Amino acid sequence: MMLDNEISEVATTVGERIQKLIGTHRSRLYAAAAHLPLQGGKRMRPFMVVKSCEAVGGKPADAFAAATAIELLHNFTLVHDDIMDNDMLRRGMPTVHTLYGNPLAILAGDLLFAEALDLLLTSGGDPEKLRRAASALTRATILLSEGQQMDMDFEGKGDVTEAEYLEMVYKKTAALFQAAGEMGAILGGGSEQEIRLLGECGKDMGIAFQIYDDYLGVTSTEEVLGKSVGNDIREGKKTLIVIKSLETPARKMTLKLLGKKDASDLEINDLVQTFKRLGVLEYVLGKAEAHVHEAKASLMKLPDTKARSQLLELVDYSVKRKK
Amino acid sequence: MMLDNEISEVATTVGERIQKLIGTHRSRLYAAAAHLPLQGGKRMRPFMVVKSCEAVGGKPADAFAAATAIELLHNFTLVHDDIMDNDMLRRGMPTVHTLYGNPLAILAGDLLFAEALDLLLTSGGDPEKLRRAASALTRATILLSEGQQMDMDFEGKGDVTEAEYLEMVYKKTAALFQAAGEMGAILGGGSEQEIRLLGECGKDMGIAFQIYDDYLGVTSTEEVLGKSVGNDIREGKKTLIVIKSLETPARKMTLKLLGKKDASDLEINDLVQTFKRLGVLEYVLGKAEAHVHEAKASLMKLPDTKARSQLLELVDYSVKRKK
Repeated sequence: MMLDNEISEVATTVGERIQKLIGTHRSRLYAAAAHLPLQGGKRMRPFMVVKSCEAVGGKPADAFAAATAIELLHNFTLVHDDIMDNDMLRRGMPTVHTLYGNPLAILAGDLLFAEALDLLLTSGGDPEKLRRAASALTRATILLSEGQQMDMDFEGKGDVTEAEYLEMVYKKTAALFQAAGEMGAILGGGSEQEIRLLGECGKDMGIAFQIYDDYLGVTSTEEVLGKSVGNDIREGKKTLIVIKSLETPARKMTLKLLGKKDASDLEINDLVQTFKRLGVLEYVLGKAEAHVHEAKASLMKLPDTKARSQLLELVDYSVKRKK
Repeated sequence: MMLDNEISEVATTVGERIQKLIGTHRSRLYAAAAHLPLQGGKRMRPFMVVKSCEAVGGKPADAFAAATAIELLHNFTLVHDDIMDNDMLRRGMPTVHTLYGNPLAILAGDLLFAEALDLLLTSGGDPEKLRRAASALTRATILLSEGQQMDMDFEGKGDVTEAEYLEMVYKKTAALFQAAGEMGAILGGGSEQEIRLLGECGKDMGIAFQIYDDYLGVTSTEEVLGKSVGNDIREGKKTLIVIKSLETPARKMTLKLLGKKDASDLEINDLVQTFKRLGVLEYVLGKAEAHVHEAKASLMKLPDTKARSQLLELVDYSVKRKK
């Protein structure tokens, strides 16, 4: 797939910058901070930053510090989320707090946050662009915190509405993709309308991405996911699939397995087949596709460039990827 | 004391801004985030920011967003430090994680960090000044993380040298006072030399402040401190007092109580009397005073203004306060 190569190109540059910034320090703190971001990951957010910059006529070089910053910031939130959610594995590897303990993992996350903003603010270039790009990032981080709180609250809550779910997903996932589009457009010298459109594109793509992520969590395989199929259900997560299924005759069956830590693969599979039969999965995929459609509509209002084509591909990828 | 009134004036404005920013939200996350900064505290860092701005000819209004930001950032580090150190009380009140649990306390700290930078970056005014002031804050946060790691490492370490202690104190405490001086001078339109001098002043004052803090921890009273006298010793903290005493005939006696969680007040008092007799306390106070001297020397190179007089008073206060 062409897009994979194009993402890889950006990912390589970002990986090198992260290595240079925090990969060579000797202390345990820097080792803990570098653990997750140097493992890789999809690097979709940096790609979005760089291509949004190019889509408004900027050079990739104008966006690489911001692309690296957003990836560091994303990793900061993952490190802290893993502590809060008590997750032992991420991408099939031990999480930072599992390896280094909670105190150092908290500190490593804080360091990643500080390094992200410091890198962006000291990257040179027009101060107003840097100020505005940095504030897009801090604004998104405020929303991310609110989204993580909603996500944690959902677990102890009864029924969650689709609107509440979408607000949570916007804050927890899509706000950072929105910032990615905005930051790229700001640093590339885009107009106010271009900044807004690329932000909207990122927002819709982010929502589609998260809905599809939840979908993959019940329809993919353990081998591909690096974790058990249906873990969201075992952990009692109120995904859109669960929210929708609670409105169907599968309500009782869903409630029986929701939060049941030792639910067997067979039980999970039975439930997923029921979701399929009742049209729950189709409904959820349809929602993701509607946001994909919106994201593309925003992009189509921009000039026809190679970067725009790549962003259109990225939007498609967000609901076509295997993991 | 005149200075108290002057600090109070800045503290009131900063408190109102914090209340407006995060005090009126209804969610548990914002309640957790607002808990510590709305309790008060000495607000020395905001005062340093505002007076540094005035000392180079700026208006207080130019510095209030930065003053509020540095206080929020300081509180973010306290919230996370309390989790890492497993401290149940701060200023005699329950810590955030004691009241809200670790996950929400981690998130509340993250939110305070994001709000601090967001506030500064969106406060209006010259973008280059805002960019530079924000990067002074992120740079200090990187150093703070390194300092907190050193502090945690010291507890499991054998002998710590005075140089290692001073590096830790610089990073954990003085770097933020340094940033306070720099930020104020940047936003007030100071020259490069003025920015440097006010940063140096903050750095020396911060080191003196922390050394004196350790001194108060063994010489003050429980009533004034809001915690037991000698807690640093019970917790095994390698303060300068401890480091120095390990070079004296009190070495054995110090090692016996260092990290002994249930050491009695009588045992602690005996040790403190020995410190006194052997000149350990005098040595430590002398170190603090040397940094006070340096801080004042930096200030004396600035024009003679009311703000400079107030900063000179603040420097004195850092080693004359009761708590």
